Amino acid sequence: MFRKSLFLFFVISLIASPVYAAPTTTSLELSINLVWIMLGAFLVFFMHAGFAMVESGFTRAKNSLNILMKNFLTISISTILFFIVGFGIMFGTSGGSFIGTDSFLLHDVEDVGFFVFQAMFIATCATIISGAVAERMKLSSYVLIVIAMTAFVYPVVGHWVWQGDGWLTDLGFSDFAGSTVVHVTGAVGALTAVLHLGPRIGKYSGKRVNVIQGHNIPIGALGVFILWLGWFGFNGGSTLTADPSLVPMVIGTTLLSTSAALVSTAVYTKLRFKRIDASLSLNGVLGGLVGITAGCAEISLGGSIIVGLISGIILVEGIHWLDAKLRIDDPVGAITVHGLCGIWGTLAIGLFSTSTGLFYGYGTTQFWIQTIGVIAVIAWTMITLGAFLFIVKQFSSIRVSEEEELAGLDFTEHGSNAYELKESLISENDESIGYNLGLADRLNNLSMGNAKHKST
Amino acid sequence: MFRKSLFLFFVISLIASPVYAAPTTTSLELSINLVWIMLGAFLVFFMHAGFAMVESGFTRAKNSLNILMKNFLTISISTILFFIVGFGIMFGTSGGSFIGTDSFLLHDVEDVGFFVFQAMFIATCATIISGAVAERMKLSSYVLIVIAMTAFVYPVVGHWVWQGDGWLTDLGFSDFAGSTVVHVTGAVGALTAVLHLGPRIGKYSGKRVNVIQGHNIPIGALGVFILWLGWFGFNGGSTLTADPSLVPMVIGTTLLSTSAALVSTAVYTKLRFKRIDASLSLNGVLGGLVGITAGCAEISLGGSIIVGLISGIILVEGIHWLDAKLRIDDPVGAITVHGLCGIWGTLAIGLFSTSTGLFYGYGTTQFWIQTIGVIAVIAWTMITLGAFLFIVKQFSSIRVSEEEELAGLDFTEHGSNAYELKESLISENDESIGYNLGLADRLNNLSMGNAKHKST
Amino acid sequence: MFRKSLFLFFVISLIASPVYAAPTTTSLELSINLVWIMLGAFLVFFMHAGFAMVESGFTRAKNSLNILMKNFLTISISTILFFIVGFGIMFGTSGGSFIGTDSFLLHDVEDVGFFVFQAMFIATCATIISGAVAERMKLSSYVLIVIAMTAFVYPVVGHWVWQGDGWLTDLGFSDFAGSTVVHVTGAVGALTAVLHLGPRIGKYSGKRVNVIQGHNIPIGALGVFILWLGWFGFNGGSTLTADPSLVPMVIGTTLLSTSAALVSTAVYTKLRFKRIDASLSLNGVLGGLVGITAGCAEISLGGSIIVGLISGIILVEGIHWLDAKLRIDDPVGAITVHGLCGIWGTLAIGLFSTSTGLFYGYGTTQFWIQTIGVIAVIAWTMITLGAFLFIVKQFSSIRVSEEEELAGLDFTEHGSNAYELKESLISENDESIGYNLGLADRLNNLSMGNAKHKST
Repeated sequence: MFRKSLFLFFVISLIASPVYAAPTTTSLELSINLVWIMLGAFLVFFMHAGFAMVESGFTRAKNSLNILMKNFLTISISTILFFIVGFGIMFGTSGGSFIGTDSFLLHDVEDVGFFVFQAMFIATCATIISGAVAERMKLSSYVLIVIAMTAFVYPVVGHWVWQGDGWLTDLGFSDFAGSTVVHVTGAVGALTAVLHLGPRIGKYSGKRVNVIQGHNIPIGALGVFILWLGWFGFNGGSTLTADPSLVPMVIGTTLLSTSAALVSTAVYTKLRFKRIDASLSLNGVLGGLVGITAGCAEISLGGSIIVGLISGIILVEGIHWLDAKLRIDDPVGAITVHGLCGIWGTLAIGLFSTSTGLFYGYGTTQFWIQTIGVIAVIAWTMITLGAFLFIVKQFSSIRVSEEEELAGLDFTEHGSNAYELKESLISENDESIGYNLGLADRLNNLSMGNAKHKST
Repeated sequence: MFRKSLFLFFVISLIASPVYAAPTTTSLELSINLVWIMLGAFLVFFMHAGFAMVESGFTRAKNSLNILMKNFLTISISTILFFIVGFGIMFGTSGGSFIGTDSFLLHDVEDVGFFVFQAMFIATCATIISGAVAERMKLSSYVLIVIAMTAFVYPVVGHWVWQGDGWLTDLGFSDFAGSTVVHVTGAVGALTAVLHLGPRIGKYSGKRVNVIQGHNIPIGALGVFILWLGWFGFNGGSTLTADPSLVPMVIGTTLLSTSAALVSTAVYTKLRFKRIDASLSLNGVLGGLVGITAGCAEISLGGSIIVGLISGIILVEGIHWLDAKLRIDDPVGAITVHGLCGIWGTLAIGLFSTSTGLFYGYGTTQFWIQTIGVIAVIAWTMITLGAFLFIVKQFSSIRVSEEEELAGLDFTEHGSNAYELKESLISENDESIGYNLGLADRLNNLSMGNAKHKST
Repeated sequence: MFRKSLFLFFVISLIASPVYAAPTTTSLELSINLVWIMLGAFLVFFMHAGFAMVESGFTRAKNSLNILMKNFLTISISTILFFIVGFGIMFGTSGGSFIGTDSFLLHDVEDVGFFVFQAMFIATCATIISGAVAERMKLSSYVLIVIAMTAFVYPVVGHWVWQGDGWLTDLGFSDFAGSTVVHVTGAVGALTAVLHLGPRIGKYSGKRVNVIQGHNIPIGALGVFILWLGWFGFNGGSTLTADPSLVPMVIGTTLLSTSAALVSTAVYTKLRFKRIDASLSLNGVLGGLVGITAGCAEISLGGSIIVGLISGIILVEGIHWLDAKLRIDDPVGAITVHGLCGIWGTLAIGLFSTSTGLFYGYGTTQFWIQTIGVIAVIAWTMITLGAFLFIVKQFSSIRVSEEEELAGLDFTEHGSNAYELKESLISENDESIGYNLGLADRLNNLSMGNAKHKST
């Protein structure tokens, strides 16, 4: 009887799906790889929850809603744009080695699962920027950057490296899961935007470099755990097939390299600053993940530990260098995590790859190829996004006003607060709810003149 | 040597499992589908964490523990009841097209995996109610509703639509993953309960409609991300098989429709209220998910974007309509998200289905069948749960007292607080711990007379 | 065209992976089992996010960073040590029934996937301790415990039970997913550490037993949900194969037992304390999970509900007993959850196993075998870790100073705070950022003399 209802489910599936065949080893292989890539896609999707929590937790409470909206808008806009145009630029073939020019709107594309997996990646690249520009960029300007990055800048880089005809593929450039394609591209986009934007008010005063503390590190730490989890899908899913001889190595190197990076950051901050710095250590995890992303499929387990140890130190010195020496204000350390550790991870293939690396007797050829790839991606991203932002700035400022920045973007862009931790007893205290409201009234009511009153 | 221990694991597995056969394509297909449906079940399970965070974050801190307990109790009670009685009503066959009357306690049911997957769904239906009745319903009364919904109301609806002999199945009603079966049923249950319950104190004063802000939007936003993730299992797992021609379409439509709904809500609130409303936008994500749940397997990728765009607008207007016009107090917007967007998603099949929809040249037949199904489910749920609540109210109030509501349900129902953010140094400040306590003493101590003292 | 790029991905995979064969049913079975065990490993990994949130949420805000760092360090250090030495001790075979003496650094180990899965387990065992020693143990001393547990204590226990030649395996001891191997070992480690450490300042004053409330129960509740989710991988993945006749039973018993435990704890606290205690109920979930871990593959669905109901009651009485009677200060209840419920779960096999249990007519033999196993593991862990801690204490205190404990470990060990919820407007309030800081300066600046100023 129950079997019967299950049977009916199958029938429904048959109706809905165009083709059904009795299982063959070929059809079964397709099914297994499907499950694997879907699992990967789900995990990479979840990384966006991780980014949202990290970026929100490591910045101030008054900008939390704004950060969250940026993260949600990033994945939504980039997914739709990737469907319409990005996938075609990245994986279309008729345009040659530089750019794809077909497959728009997934025209003639059969493998929608591959699209879904790649759509999660493009959103990752774009969302890296949201952390670096936090607390001062207009939401509308940020949306423009997301559009530029996901409709053009990133898909072109992806075409170079991950499409069969791409010129960096032809050159022999290796970047398995995207230390450069995703992370360096995102980080250079972030750097370009931050250079156009300037530091937050109060960050640098005279010779002093001020720390602006995050408001909720536990939720940031949860975000780091979510990102680590998601990264198993990011690197593991990039195998595209459930290959028993490849997948466990990819997961193993990802796990060990990241563990090593955390230990390295913790020990290094203890030595350098006398205390284990929690924020840096959490970023050390992310640096370790970015650092092994390019080489996770061709570096040994032992090698991955060394790569991770170095990632952890680069992370600490990189953040210090950008913040204290270059005075580039990157609230969550995104440029170092994704940029410097991404470059390191890409170059590390030239040293640690068991099939092409210097330390395995293959000379420096691969290292120089990796260097060329990194330079090309940095130049491309900086020039295209820089030009785009230059044009945008001719029309309007990309930064909120000083008054808005001080009041917090949650209030000025969204008319609300992220937290209301005083439990107001309504009968005694009508301040918290004592304004007239239909939603329309409520929001119209919150004009800038009220800013001072609310931002407490 | 290591192989040997692995071999022993296999042997243990053999002992524990009744049958083991050398792999055939048929046995392998069973294994693949098992992994897929388990992955789906795990993701749907995780949705309950999402619901808990959304409902807790979007209500006041003083009711947080109570909301959390409601969510944990919902999944626990509903799972056990589904095992004992619900599965039989839903998937039993001997009772005909209206109700199942066998398979209780999974008697003679072989596929426990299918039970697990479906058990996660029933809990979802019930938990929708917990958000709508938040901050004022007695926990004991809520538990009675959960029992009624999961032991009877929902399984009957499920029988109609998802069991082979169900009368709506026979009629041709289509609801792939449950826009109506799960979400409309839950939302109508919520509406019925709210009508019996009334609004929270302070929500409506004279002509004024007051906003009662949520206390922790970042954790609510995390909940939304978790729900989005879980929904890939909700819709994707409903395929029941890892079918490469079906699954990627289901995931693709779910992703694109939801992305479109968020963009739509964000843009629409910007146009209507001059600002992107964060809470509504987060609900827009949920509305988009509910809206594509029915049609995710038979609407095209492009069609899913349109369905999502409309879901996002329905969400905004629906919440405004219920709150400001009908003065129905639904703290988290559950009735609109799951009810109105669920109805829209069910009807959308009549328009956008590539195999039966009006816009693909198949006329209005399917649309009217969908309408009949929606009306039947609404009527059934409203009548049965309404009658149940009418009877319950003869025996005792389903609502906490005014004093308890003002003090907060955390204190009055659980004798504790959700947060203790002032780090009390024990040596200096004995207020926070200065009461005698074994657990029994501690809890007995917290009589209602202390309410005023604690609820600060 | 798109196919072409996909094809190239395959080629890349071929280059990176040593062997590729056309699909056979044998190779497909390997792939399916790979996907299943990787899914399990990812879920168990995610449990560490759950532990971190539970432990952070159930303790005070001033120790949050410290707890988080302990959790991150645990998984990182234990993973690396398991790679270097632990895996060899646990699964190496040349040493006989007591300890393994080969496979160090995974030498000659082919199945890296099995290593990854097991690496997640070892970290779970170690992290149990971090909750029990929270708020007063030096981070450096905790790290030493992690090293002892993961490099030696736990792998030996694992060898006894899960390696083919282990003496407890030979005896017929059954512990499918580790109620004893993982949870009792961890809990006895925790008990041993707590006995060496003593209670927190202010916990016991004269005859009074004080409650020290957790600071953020919602995030703790999220942690519980994450742990429940992860446990499906913990128990389900322990099948090692995607066996359709075994996996659904394991997941079904895990789900039902845990649900029953929550209901049981909620009802029991209502009867005993007049109110449903939220913190105990959340721990009831964890107790239910630990209780079914040993027997999830050989107890019936109905039996699992009974096992869970009893777990829930043991949890309440156990916590009360340890706290109020024995005056053992375990901030998060870890010793009861993992220890007492773990013992119960292991013994329950002797009663409820459908293939060896007393209630199924198989006599008491299995029960006594289970008892021997539990006693052996308790004695081993207590003696080895106790001796280790005795030696460590000869060199330095394992506990922070009274001043440091009162100030909070976040400040004294990490020079920072977990939360900064007052949104400081920089222009008006320079206290929050008004200190000079490069990172080095910032951290050096925070000497103990500033403790009073900061810990507000």
